[in-house]
Amino acid sequence: MRPPSSPSEAGPSGAIPAEAGPATGLFDGVLGRGPVAAEVDDAAWLRALLDVEAALARAGATAGLVPSSAAEEIGDACRGTFDPAALGRDAAASGNPVVPLVRAIEAACSAQAGPWVHRGATSQDVLDTAMVLVARRAVAALLVDLEAASTAAEALARRHRDHPVSGRTLLQQALPTTFGLKAAGWMTALDGAADRLTDVCRSLPVQLGGAVGTMSALEGRGTTVLEALAAELDLAVPVLAWHTLRLPVADLAGALGTAAGVLGKVALDLALLAQTEVAEVAEGVAGRGGSSTMPHKRNPVAAVSARAGAMRAPGLVAGLLGAMAQEHERAAGAWHAEWEALSDLLRCTGSSAAWLRDGLEHLEVDADRMREGLAGAALGSEAVALALTGSLGRARAHDVVAAAVAADAGAPGGPDLRARLLADADVSATLTPQQVDQLLDPAAHAGEAPRLVDRALAAHEQRSRP
Amino acid sequence: MRPPSSPSEAGPSGAIPAEAGPATGLFDGVLGRGPVAAEVDDAAWLRALLDVEAALARAGATAGLVPSSAAEEIGDACRGTFDPAALGRDAAASGNPVVPLVRAIEAACSAQAGPWVHRGATSQDVLDTAMVLVARRAVAALLVDLEAASTAAEALARRHRDHPVSGRTLLQQALPTTFGLKAAGWMTALDGAADRLTDVCRSLPVQLGGAVGTMSALEGRGTTVLEALAAELDLAVPVLAWHTLRLPVADLAGALGTAAGVLGKVALDLALLAQTEVAEVAEGVAGRGGSSTMPHKRNPVAAVSARAGAMRAPGLVAGLLGAMAQEHERAAGAWHAEWEALSDLLRCTGSSAAWLRDGLEHLEVDADRMREGLAGAALGSEAVALALTGSLGRARAHDVVAAAVAADAGAPGGPDLRARLLADADVSATLTPQQVDQLLDPAAHAGEAPRLVDRALAAHEQRSRP
Amino acid sequence: MRPPSSPSEAGPSGAIPAEAGPATGLFDGVLGRGPVAAEVDDAAWLRALLDVEAALARAGATAGLVPSSAAEEIGDACRGTFDPAALGRDAAASGNPVVPLVRAIEAACSAQAGPWVHRGATSQDVLDTAMVLVARRAVAALLVDLEAASTAAEALARRHRDHPVSGRTLLQQALPTTFGLKAAGWMTALDGAADRLTDVCRSLPVQLGGAVGTMSALEGRGTTVLEALAAELDLAVPVLAWHTLRLPVADLAGALGTAAGVLGKVALDLALLAQTEVAEVAEGVAGRGGSSTMPHKRNPVAAVSARAGAMRAPGLVAGLLGAMAQEHERAAGAWHAEWEALSDLLRCTGSSAAWLRDGLEHLEVDADRMREGLAGAALGSEAVALALTGSLGRARAHDVVAAAVAADAGAPGGPDLRARLLADADVSATLTPQQVDQLLDPAAHAGEAPRLVDRALAAHEQRSRP
Amino acid sequence: MRPPSSPSEAGPSGAIPAEAGPATGLFDGVLGRGPVAAEVDDAAWLRALLDVEAALARAGATAGLVPSSAAEEIGDACRGTFDPAALGRDAAASGNPVVPLVRAIEAACSAQAGPWVHRGATSQDVLDTAMVLVARRAVAALLVDLEAASTAAEALARRHRDHPVSGRTLLQQALPTTFGLKAAGWMTALDGAADRLTDVCRSLPVQLGGAVGTMSALEGRGTTVLEALAAELDLAVPVLAWHTLRLPVADLAGALGTAAGVLGKVALDLALLAQTEVAEVAEGVAGRGGSSTMPHKRNPVAAVSARAGAMRAPGLVAGLLGAMAQEHERAAGAWHAEWEALSDLLRCTGSSAAWLRDGLEHLEVDADRMREGLAGAALGSEAVALALTGSLGRARAHDVVAAAVAADAGAPGGPDLRARLLADADVSATLTPQQVDQLLDPAAHAGEAPRLVDRALAAHEQRSRP
Repeated sequence: MRPPSSPSEAGPSGAIPAEAGPATGLFDGVLGRGPVAAEVDDAAWLRALLDVEAALARAGATAGLVPSSAAEEIGDACRGTFDPAALGRDAAASGNPVVPLVRAIEAACSAQAGPWVHRGATSQDVLDTAMVLVARRAVAALLVDLEAASTAAEALARRHRDHPVSGRTLLQQALPTTFGLKAAGWMTALDGAADRLTDVCRSLPVQLGGAVGTMSALEGRGTTVLEALAAELDLAVPVLAWHTLRLPVADLAGALGTAAGVLGKVALDLALLAQTEVAEVAEGVAGRGGSSTMPHKRNPVAAVSARAGAMRAPGLVAGLLGAMAQEHERAAGAWHAEWEALSDLLRCTGSSAAWLRDGLEHLEVDADRMREGLAGAALGSEAVALALTGSLGRARAHDVVAAAVAADAGAPGGPDLRARLLADADVSATLTPQQVDQLLDPAAHAGEAPRLVDRALAAHEQRSRP
Repeated sequence: MRPPSSPSEAGPSGAIPAEAGPATGLFDGVLGRGPVAAEVDDAAWLRALLDVEAALARAGATAGLVPSSAAEEIGDACRGTFDPAALGRDAAASGNPVVPLVRAIEAACSAQAGPWVHRGATSQDVLDTAMVLVARRAVAALLVDLEAASTAAEALARRHRDHPVSGRTLLQQALPTTFGLKAAGWMTALDGAADRLTDVCRSLPVQLGGAVGTMSALEGRGTTVLEALAAELDLAVPVLAWHTLRLPVADLAGALGTAAGVLGKVALDLALLAQTEVAEVAEGVAGRGGSSTMPHKRNPVAAVSARAGAMRAPGLVAGLLGAMAQEHERAAGAWHAEWEALSDLLRCTGSSAAWLRDGLEHLEVDADRMREGLAGAALGSEAVALALTGSLGRARAHDVVAAAVAADAGAPGGPDLRARLLADADVSATLTPQQVDQLLDPAAHAGEAPRLVDRALAAHEQRSRP
Repeated sequence: MRPPSSPSEAGPSGAIPAEAGPATGLFDGVLGRGPVAAEVDDAAWLRALLDVEAALARAGATAGLVPSSAAEEIGDACRGTFDPAALGRDAAASGNPVVPLVRAIEAACSAQAGPWVHRGATSQDVLDTAMVLVARRAVAALLVDLEAASTAAEALARRHRDHPVSGRTLLQQALPTTFGLKAAGWMTALDGAADRLTDVCRSLPVQLGGAVGTMSALEGRGTTVLEALAAELDLAVPVLAWHTLRLPVADLAGALGTAAGVLGKVALDLALLAQTEVAEVAEGVAGRGGSSTMPHKRNPVAAVSARAGAMRAPGLVAGLLGAMAQEHERAAGAWHAEWEALSDLLRCTGSSAAWLRDGLEHLEVDADRMREGLAGAALGSEAVALALTGSLGRARAHDVVAAAVAADAGAPGGPDLRARLLADADVSATLTPQQVDQLLDPAAHAGEAPRLVDRALAAHEQRSRP
Repeated sequence: MRPPSSPSEAGPSGAIPAEAGPATGLFDGVLGRGPVAAEVDDAAWLRALLDVEAALARAGATAGLVPSSAAEEIGDACRGTFDPAALGRDAAASGNPVVPLVRAIEAACSAQAGPWVHRGATSQDVLDTAMVLVARRAVAALLVDLEAASTAAEALARRHRDHPVSGRTLLQQALPTTFGLKAAGWMTALDGAADRLTDVCRSLPVQLGGAVGTMSALEGRGTTVLEALAAELDLAVPVLAWHTLRLPVADLAGALGTAAGVLGKVALDLALLAQTEVAEVAEGVAGRGGSSTMPHKRNPVAAVSARAGAMRAPGLVAGLLGAMAQEHERAAGAWHAEWEALSDLLRCTGSSAAWLRDGLEHLEVDADRMREGLAGAALGSEAVALALTGSLGRARAHDVVAAAVAADAGAPGGPDLRARLLADADVSATLTPQQVDQLLDPAAHAGEAPRLVDRALAAHEQRSRP
């Protein structure tokens, strides 16, 4: 599955997409990484608003409501330059920036074309449709990083398919798995997050209802204009205006929150694996992660920053869901509360994706250390218990092994454990010393991990096919 | 589209579904209404846990890992009675209630069958799969109320297709719409919420990975057991174990949060329409909504209680999304934080749906009052402005009308407005008095509302077809 | 009680405070109103970071750790100009903007002074202390608007002390109150919110611990430097470094969330009172609140925008509280997640306060309409029921009145109600017709409202005294 | 500072406090540990509601509004037994459980006393005051565990005042600290959380305003009754009724969210220190933390469960803050949404405190392993860099040391590092080999940690004094 549109083909206005350019704010290097930040800033919103006004005029022309020449002139005007700060200032009088924008576009048109600007629409029609465009463009940019992160995880899964590593539950070493299976899990979850975002973007609808959703100013041709506008912008056609029925916003919030959750989980694993005491992975970007005062440090900056972005998402999602309580035909505040919350949610999820991509693409994996980490552990104890279950019963089998492990202070999993187990009459009656050795070999206990990697890779490949 | 399964056919164990019975707690009458509360209580969770252990034994038998007789005996044991409080107490030692439950089931089996209980699974496999069953059953119950609420809204949309009512933006009367279109909007949004929940329930996967997701205790037949278990419980087969890849939980959270958002929106509209000063609707349940001290009051209890349930959702969703940051192969706390949060989210959304259904089914609509509410309003002013736009330009047309309205103190929309408009030279040069009369008639300004109702009803019917 | 410091005296660097200037972004007119936005932008953060580095050098000099001449030169350098965008870009390498800022300050110093920049501190010491400065300055700005809003509410409470208005419960008219008491409630709650913010700001501590909180690079004079730094910046001295013990951030979050909650409540009341059907208040700012397409509309833009800002707060607070889970001596992501979340929370609460101040200061109150709204209502029914309780018992008294009200269709509270009540034998045996008249007069039922206004005003005045 | 009242002296009714008894639900062992759960269940709420009705009657008698004999009889009736489930069911008709409760109390009284039940109050007066009682009793219970956790941390701080351990930033070993300082940080933060809760509980006000806050049914003696009621229940006297001015709820939410944040932070540290690869601490409760299938595991159940409880808090706080938007004189849903959310917040924070207390009280600290963990690390590198700064400048000093560390693969901090450093001409010109040895000794770099422990202990002791 591919993103619905790449950022470079996102806009109907032919606008050149924002480059994944340099950060522009004090915190952008850490919290606004990647291309999404530029897709949700004022310039991007303004571009989207202008795209909608231009498309609305063209749709009106298609429906016979607006003279073609006026539509063309309006389209030209919408390719002009407007000042977001001035519009923002003037927005205070009406409560949204579309009102001054319409005046400004009209002022840029001739007296013939001017009155046809914004024909039949209400401010919210334009702002909501622009919000949808902003979201789609931002998600397209986000998906590039999300897919790249998945591709990086895929490579790790292939390379380390059979390399054993401790599986850890409740932050304790449990049984062996392979690093390939860990990475395959990341890949699968990143794919799932991307699929949800892609689905949501495909269903994003245009907004057009007029002041109260009745299309009263469209001279009976409302549905025609609606469909033409949707076609112009390559958006879905809604059954009704959704001025206060915010399912599209909730869908975006849910899918972004889910994506952030997945990004945060992978980043958390990376940060934990990079701990000094674990040191099974490191971030391999030269010159990054140094400390101002501690020269020996090598901080996992990508994982840390990816987590930071992801952590902001749940609260922002709650804000958007809370804002679904919208009164009658236009909300008295809840609508306005969406604009920045959605932009922030896109930006922080996008930054997280950009950082995680970077972290995975430059990950240094120390497979030897992973294997060594297993050697000293009593990870085979489950296998011994299982092998004893048939003759001893599960409870007794568990207790025998637990007692042997508990007594094995100092060097859990070492030769003492073997000796203690065999010293138990029940154990030695059931298992030979060779069998105990084999059962205690941690590398033999990764179960079906390699085959599960293959299974995940097959699903990943299946997904990528057209 | 229909719910994936009705509550009465929800369980594979043939268990009798919880009745939508009497409330069992002090706040349940208000906050735990309807059948969902009983689908998420301790008894429901215990039933689901037992269903999973029984199905796991059968799946093991199917895969040749567990003797058929043992599977049968385990299944019998799982139909027995267990004490949730005792399990809860014992759960403190291990950190989850599955550990003591497995011991209890084993104790209820013969020495032959006992060791085969829980074969090859880890606690989280059983608890997660049970959580999915609980969620599916609860959502099935919720969908009954959600669909009934939609059906009630449908009836309102049909009955009031053409009945004019004020459209209101920012809590101000704006232009007329019809009450049918308001109700059609509610119906469409409720349908959308139901569809999302149905989709999520269809994709809910079984959980089976063993301690660290490698299926190490399934003797190489992990995938076979996985598929058999999924078939037993009619759940989806996941690519990999999702112990710490919580997309299914996030999907549920998102869809439930969305549903709660829609429920809250409709309930808000009802509460606003029922205001003493608006009084366009009332809740028609005899004996409800009285006040202990104010005999004249008739409180919209259903709308109020539906809002109360819906308001809890955003914070609970945030909690579940925040809990996606799960370490390695099993989380050190975030997993445990899901159990009650998801139950609460299901319960409060379910209560909201039950209340809203009730509120919509018993709604008394005062169409006359709606029409009267329009009479005094200057709602035709947009139409006048539009009619003047061609000759005056949009800005001047707006200003002329705004001036006439502003001067029309005391009785906005009354005869003075007509006179003031016609007193303007530009207006009288453009429009005849008859045209002004027609333009100022509010009932004539509901635009395409009736046809949009038809459009929404068609989509609603399309959805219901198999 | 007064704000801890006004914005104009906020900084130790003598920097000129940001003006409450024109909005600078597309949404700032609506969502970034008032002076707070400029106190949390990049320039404000950078100013605070430089103030801290300068103060740190002076504190080092005080403690004898840094040559006075170096401290002076560093102070000069910190009054220079730095580029937030460049710092933001370079922050990506280390994970925070302090690292490049220190290099930049050092570069602006002579070779003698340079090495003394940032002496003994870690990045987080500087960033956290700057965050505290930013918060204190922003709260000081916010408090100006909050106190002004309270003052406006106070004026309303005085003016309308005795003017009756419907008290409304569950959005139904209940019993009369006075508009003065409504306004006194707003005032009291705004005062409470301001007091909490003031208290929090007074306790905000400086941060200084070095890399892991041991002050290891302060040559044994850590506490001396700590106290000197706190004195330089007029901040509290903490017991220990709070690098990962985030009580000060939680305190800010809680107090800001509380303030936003109060602001949102008052704004909600204003929006409801301004409804077309209620029309008891209106926003009296000429030229604001017009609609682009509906000339008759007069939208309560201030109330709506105040609500929009307030609605964002709960999710942002959740984000900050969730970020309290910080690992060991510096968090791997949660710390970074605070920076923008706290800025946003300050900004949206500040915008809400600025809007609400505006809304209250320009509120047009229609006391006649409030009184008329009461005339038709059966608000005296509680009084009748109460008067009957002695002889009839509470249950029977309630039922008698409820029956009379229920039968009184069409004109609740009208003459029919009186007649129906007196037609009841129990009623006429207990009350004279004159007593019934008196009891049914809504204006007589505002209870102790005027005296409660006095009580609230007294508490408000008490608070303002030094 | 001590908790405002211990649970055993919490109630004015002389009711025996709920014991910290056995868990009563499936998840209570993990998520409802400790005494708080029993302070927020239906029985506790019912007890509080009855306490309020009884106190209200006594307060009425004090004010001369209610006959003393009636007040006494009502007090007796309120010591009777009522069925929460039945009340809950009947609550559906009116929207809250106080209405049926008042009827039930009245039914338990004689015809003389009955009509005096609930005299002058509205349902919300009683429910809000009961909520405050429930909260205060639950917080008193919570504070016992919170203070005990602090005491346990205090003991750790004393015992390990000088024991070195790695300070860790971004999950990387940074510089040494002492375990005593880590524990002192926990103690200080726990104390801070307890202080905030204590402060909030001291300010919790009684609620009494009648239907719309005017005290209209209190015959002009409202303030007298208010003060008498507050005295009866040992609660604060509010300026005005706070029916829809929810500062007390917000205060509770903020303080509980803050406490949960601190608990979660300490639990996170414990879980990280208990990791197999770190193993610097373990939970020392025999028989706990075993795994059903992995006998060698020793899970940090207390830390994990403490985290689970704490994680739920931010979303619940957001819910309560979001519910501050309450309409007019009683909210249409937001008030009802508080009841369970506040109970849940108290319960999950209480469970977290009970678990953390347990975890800290039974913590096994491996000080030897902590010291060994430092031996291999290059933690002295900061000190070397600092020692070089005077002669080389900060940038060059940092780079020299960073280069030496980077080249020191395999055994960071080992003898190679020393050699490499001395091989640098600049280094050997500045420092003697002995100086380098001393600087590289990690144990020498804990800075002022021991003295900071003393400082924290002094503040802790100061706080405990009357």
